[in-house]
Amino acid sequence: MLGAVATGVASRGVVPIENSIEGPVGVTLDLLAWEYDLCIEGEIILRVRHNLLVNRGVSLNEIREVYSHPQSLAQCRGFLEKLGVSTHSTPSTAAAARTIMGRRECAAIGTRRAADIYGLEVIAENIQDFDPNFTRFIVLSEGDHEPTGRDKTSIVFSLSEDKPGGLHEILGFFADAGVNLTKIESRPSKRGLGKYIFFVDFQGHRKDPHVMDILRSISDRTPFFKILGSYPEMTDY
Amino acid sequence: MLGAVATGVASRGVVPIENSIEGPVGVTLDLLAWEYDLCIEGEIILRVRHNLLVNRGVSLNEIREVYSHPQSLAQCRGFLEKLGVSTHSTPSTAAAARTIMGRRECAAIGTRRAADIYGLEVIAENIQDFDPNFTRFIVLSEGDHEPTGRDKTSIVFSLSEDKPGGLHEILGFFADAGVNLTKIESRPSKRGLGKYIFFVDFQGHRKDPHVMDILRSISDRTPFFKILGSYPEMTDY
Repeated sequence: MLGAVATGVASRGVVPIENSIEGPVGVTLDLLAWEYDLCIEGEIILRVRHNLLVNRGVSLNEIREVYSHPQSLAQCRGFLEKLGVSTHSTPSTAAAARTIMGRRECAAIGTRRAADIYGLEVIAENIQDFDPNFTRFIVLSEGDHEPTGRDKTSIVFSLSEDKPGGLHEILGFFADAGVNLTKIESRPSKRGLGKYIFFVDFQGHRKDPHVMDILRSISDRTPFFKILGSYPEMTDY
Repeated sequence: MLGAVATGVASRGVVPIENSIEGPVGVTLDLLAWEYDLCIEGEIILRVRHNLLVNRGVSLNEIREVYSHPQSLAQCRGFLEKLGVSTHSTPSTAAAARTIMGRRECAAIGTRRAADIYGLEVIAENIQDFDPNFTRFIVLSEGDHEPTGRDKTSIVFSLSEDKPGGLHEILGFFADAGVNLTKIESRPSKRGLGKYIFFVDFQGHRKDPHVMDILRSISDRTPFFKILGSYPEMTDY
């Protein structure tokens, strides 16, 4: 899907990047860092409610297997453990609903809308382990967003060596300028245990003069550095 | 399994905590932070090689579905995408091998030993997306390890508020003492997007005087703070 944006077939792509229960979406972070030169143009934060879908007339104790997207399964881990079922991953929650049609020992985690479409019923609602449950999506495009005054910027970088204080030095540029970090996420660099890249989101636009100073300082001290984009911060959700 | 250690049924438990391709094992981190008061007594780092197992005589282009543990599926994502198959998660790679017995359109990601046990054959080896691929396990017990002089300590903490520089201040205690961090991992606190807890591993034992000073400083400034244990660092792998 990101490939379609990168090659110009689609003008924008929307992908999940983190969830308030399960954390980062690894595949999105890896694609942003290594595969595509796309910009984050915006963010969308949605409240997620998971439901357990079954074929009509099935009761909870008949269920042996549950199908869903791996993130949904992870967000409902506690509920599924209590149910004592085996789990199977599908590419989407819609695919899970389709998969269980006519299979009375199977359930799917999905939306009420999927239940309607595939003739299923909701046997349990709001089954996620913590509530409220939010997923943050990013909007990817060929360029990022002009400054609005309420912006955020996303960057990714690696540290130059295993010397004490590398990350501390980088974070110091933000602290000294009084800039608030809204996210910090480490991710394996794939080059061995203990080698990380860092995703940082912070308040401000890459065209703000004090942000430009910070970005220049980081760029000077890191072997790998990429500005993923500046975009309006979504605070009303 | 960790429950068996916590209740004294088992004296030790070994669980995966991170992988050099796929990153943190979320469920382990969550259990360490929130569920159990167990100590890390040691670490074990193993090189992981994944193989694609099929029923005898099956060729690659007959395969439609692949079963394995979610971490194994994630570590072989690129290979599986090229193969164009659907994926299904199982509780272990051994369970995946058992699941596909007699199902010629199905393959499992697993070990050569599982192939032997279940009468399968290895059709492709070393199919992980990056090589070498390491998984780090921790040994959990009721107490941690006495100092050996080549130790590491693991802690977890949250920050007191969304003020600029909170993490920077904490990392400063390590930087000022010249103590090297070997891992830093953020993880959602489950209390909403942008609220994290941090797992940090560093060189030194919690009984070393300079480490005691650092731990006291962190404890004074964080609403949630837990020492997960000190244990010998494994460097020969």
